[in-house]
Amino acid sequence: MRVLGIDPGLVNTGWGVIVVNGSRLSHVANGVCKSGKGDLAVRLLALHDQLEAVIAEFAPDAAAVEQTFVNSNGAATLKLGQARGIAMLVPARAGLEVGEYAPNAIKKAVVGVGHADKAQIAHMVKLQLPGVMLSGPDSADALAIAICHAHHLQSASARERVVPAARKENVA
Amino acid sequence: MRVLGIDPGLVNTGWGVIVVNGSRLSHVANGVCKSGKGDLAVRLLALHDQLEAVIAEFAPDAAAVEQTFVNSNGAATLKLGQARGIAMLVPARAGLEVGEYAPNAIKKAVVGVGHADKAQIAHMVKLQLPGVMLSGPDSADALAIAICHAHHLQSASARERVVPAARKENVA
Repeated sequence: MRVLGIDPGLVNTGWGVIVVNGSRLSHVANGVCKSGKGDLAVRLLALHDQLEAVIAEFAPDAAAVEQTFVNSNGAATLKLGQARGIAMLVPARAGLEVGEYAPNAIKKAVVGVGHADKAQIAHMVKLQLPGVMLSGPDSADALAIAICHAHHLQSASARERVVPAARKENVA
Repeated sequence: MRVLGIDPGLVNTGWGVIVVNGSRLSHVANGVCKSGKGDLAVRLLALHDQLEAVIAEFAPDAAAVEQTFVNSNGAATLKLGQARGIAMLVPARAGLEVGEYAPNAIKKAVVGVGHADKAQIAHMVKLQLPGVMLSGPDSADALAIAICHAHHLQSASARERVVPAARKENVA
């Protein structure tokens, strides 16, 4: 199963694709979509088209997007919201379910604690995806989101395996 | 020329299409896109698909979106930002330039003053688009945005007509 992680931002939107094979994770690709300069609609279209090309090329089966940190700077929150709208829409248009994870849940899944800086995240992403070459901090975060979603999908699938067995015991 | 106005919101996104013929405006259609319930990605996809259908049906030549009011409620700003990202993206994907207007610029264009309540806006929209039946306050606001954009396009085109004449005088 291929998982796409997206770290949305209006200037730079990081993305990363990993393969999940049981409990084994491996790296497929990572990069950064750049909105460039110009009108807002043109910049959002650039993010859309680049993310669409990533999905067409790497054909993920699942996607997850970081939950945006809401801060007191309304203008910054609005910009991030608009980019995040695109980051949620593009995989949904491709028929993928889109998971959402809070930044501290992602850090906990990848680093083991809810508070970690970007360097720690990049370090742990490299340890868990041997041989990965990171396009930048935004794509390291995107791979961390993909890893977090992979863990979540694994535990969901483990629960599914356990629940029918338990039900059988109840029946017996 | 047909102008589409969009008043973005995550729950309800209003839209309105008018025809601009010189200084004459007339109503074509208005309505509200509803995101319904469910995951955020599914709701944004619903807004996308409904706006895309509006553009396919009414074939506007230009579009404009209200500039979102940034308030101190970060979570509300983020939601609105995500819906606004979709409202900007869909006309851009259809090859339209997307104008942006601040709420008080829209009110000034339609009501004549920068401060006006929703009832006043709906009243003036009805006066300027005789026979219009409004789907609701969000579509009244969307028609007000389309009217504001129409005024802006008219003054831009009037400026273009004036500038070449002035240049000719300089040459003579």
